Amino acid sequence: MTLSVQPHLAAVDAPPIWEAQGWIAGRTFPAQKPLIDVCQAVPGYPPADAQLDHMAAALRLPETHRYTEFGGIARLRDALAADINRSYASGGAVARENIFATAGCNQAFCLVASALAKAGDEIILPLPAYFNYTMWLQMTGVGVRHVPFRVEAHGVPDLSDIRAAITPRTKALVLISPNNPTGAIYAPNYLNAAFELCREAGIALVLDETYRDFLGCEGAPHALFQRGDWQDTLIHLYSFSKVFCLTGYRVGAIVADPKFLDEVGKEMDCVAICPPHIGQIGAAFGLEQLDEWRRVNSAKMSARLEAMRKAFVRGDLGYALVSSGAYFAYLKHPHAGRKSYDVAKRLAERQHVLALPGSIFGPDQDDYIRMAFANVEASAMDDIAARLAADAMDLSW
Amino acid sequence: MTLSVQPHLAAVDAPPIWEAQGWIAGRTFPAQKPLIDVCQAVPGYPPADAQLDHMAAALRLPETHRYTEFGGIARLRDALAADINRSYASGGAVARENIFATAGCNQAFCLVASALAKAGDEIILPLPAYFNYTMWLQMTGVGVRHVPFRVEAHGVPDLSDIRAAITPRTKALVLISPNNPTGAIYAPNYLNAAFELCREAGIALVLDETYRDFLGCEGAPHALFQRGDWQDTLIHLYSFSKVFCLTGYRVGAIVADPKFLDEVGKEMDCVAICPPHIGQIGAAFGLEQLDEWRRVNSAKMSARLEAMRKAFVRGDLGYALVSSGAYFAYLKHPHAGRKSYDVAKRLAERQHVLALPGSIFGPDQDDYIRMAFANVEASAMDDIAARLAADAMDLSW
Repeated sequence: MTLSVQPHLAAVDAPPIWEAQGWIAGRTFPAQKPLIDVCQAVPGYPPADAQLDHMAAALRLPETHRYTEFGGIARLRDALAADINRSYASGGAVARENIFATAGCNQAFCLVASALAKAGDEIILPLPAYFNYTMWLQMTGVGVRHVPFRVEAHGVPDLSDIRAAITPRTKALVLISPNNPTGAIYAPNYLNAAFELCREAGIALVLDETYRDFLGCEGAPHALFQRGDWQDTLIHLYSFSKVFCLTGYRVGAIVADPKFLDEVGKEMDCVAICPPHIGQIGAAFGLEQLDEWRRVNSAKMSARLEAMRKAFVRGDLGYALVSSGAYFAYLKHPHAGRKSYDVAKRLAERQHVLALPGSIFGPDQDDYIRMAFANVEASAMDDIAARLAADAMDLSW
Repeated sequence: MTLSVQPHLAAVDAPPIWEAQGWIAGRTFPAQKPLIDVCQAVPGYPPADAQLDHMAAALRLPETHRYTEFGGIARLRDALAADINRSYASGGAVARENIFATAGCNQAFCLVASALAKAGDEIILPLPAYFNYTMWLQMTGVGVRHVPFRVEAHGVPDLSDIRAAITPRTKALVLISPNNPTGAIYAPNYLNAAFELCREAGIALVLDETYRDFLGCEGAPHALFQRGDWQDTLIHLYSFSKVFCLTGYRVGAIVADPKFLDEVGKEMDCVAICPPHIGQIGAAFGLEQLDEWRRVNSAKMSARLEAMRKAFVRGDLGYALVSSGAYFAYLKHPHAGRKSYDVAKRLAERQHVLALPGSIFGPDQDDYIRMAFANVEASAMDDIAARLAADAMDLSW
């Protein structure tokens, strides 16, 4: 290639999901051992019929093919503010002005990270770290500071490790709860302590709660929105991809100080002008009308989690469930010394189970693989366990 | 605000479209002098019914709510490659692998610019420069090198000026044809010379042809795709927002060397994962089925241009049509010494004509305003001309 690519980007590895999907590209699988795709976090069920009806009707409205207003359509912003105030018991603390619609949560992160940090600054991503966030920081020249993976805490990072990672260049701590890739759910008290730590250090707490609808329990995920000073430190990220199966429509949101969102708006104007209109309409409808549907599907995800945990206790599994929760399981593989890339690739090729290698989630993750188990029916968990056991027994490489 | 914003972003002005729309926010306008909005480039007619039917049906397909594959859906990539090979008489030079779907042309530019240049590098944007491109380079720390506005050439930049702007840090020259904001159409020979200049300098030629369907004449916009070496230098940007009225659906494309697109794919994976699926389907349908519809609407745009040119010859207009073409007109206002911001704001407030001030298109543009005339019916041009004349006569500030 004659075109020259800037070095930060050139140094970034290829997107891992596409690479993993390449392992099975063009392959066909026998009916008795079909492909089980636990590679990418996508809802394993369709959107609600009522939502599709609503979107199909909206598609005919003259405004739907136009740009939306700054920050997203008022209807979506109001509905999300109301949903947060109810889900987090935060009274009226979150208002329309605190909501900024994005084309998915990945975009929300990119906008927030690039608003807080320029090349040469640093952002803290605890290990294991969601690969797209690491990639974005790398390609924009922002330093990634990791925090060690705490296996004994099921992946919840140690606050003292976080404190030790803060330097004068640090602009933010990024936490994901429920976590991607570990599925770990961070307790409200823990999140409050992390907020205090960030507040004292004068850095932002970027909290990605894409999977908050799949906590598997009642009650507010945390009490941060109840704090009078939440806007000084907290930047909350959300996605409508999982909760309403709007993955292909690309809708997410940032919840933050309106003055910070004015800055984000400058970036959004360049990057996308606005999120897709039809997706915003679909997301608003979901928040307004699909409470019960959301509960039922959240329960379904909990049932899948339980089925997986039950299936994975078999003695010959070989794989150890280090952590699991909403959507994801993080497993220690039995092939000590082997690279997780080779383990995951062999698992796809021989056992027809497509999972992601731990190594794409950062350093020291070669003992692990990630499964996005939410993609598959509860009834498939025994089959997955049997294939993992077969893989553990397979000593030919 | 307690959250700290990185300085490159903080220094960027607020998005001008939102700001201009703020001038009229909450105002109502009398029936005899309604608002004429020539602020933002949006098609002034709805999408084709057949396209909406197709999208409404696609909305029910199980794959539509899922992510699309790397680079976009094959159907769209194939259709655009075929359309380019036909429109540019480039044989089979452009293949599926050369096409990368994005969420609009703005995103295409951001991805390309950030793939070519890191903070501290430079990119050349001739004056007047499309504001979102300038903003993106500013906020990412990339140096913007301008090239003087050549009024006598109706805004087409001088090649010797471009050559003089190239430094060892320069990574790309960005040209827009038909141009935003001037509407100027760059001749094929000119574009070939610009290509040669970039090739010799070892920089990329980023050519935004968002408005290429509104050239108003037959024949290929240029012969660059016919060159055996086009992939070494040319990066073509396109949008489906204007041609198929898919503005709110966010679909555009990059056409380039597949190896370069692999690098862009790393960014896209972080920024948006993929463009909205339903928009890609709509765009593919348009390319496959709407040739005649496209021709009819292109002719309608040409008729609007002619009507505007005819209306604007009135002796008392005060405003001088410096340049006009597909979608846009760039006018010199009669209020010498006044800031274009004040002129545009007063025009909105008193004459109810919402246009953009030249100053947002870069230095030395305070004598001008931009009109996106494609938004309004041909029959409205006399009314616009009368209001401009009234503004020219209005000496109270």
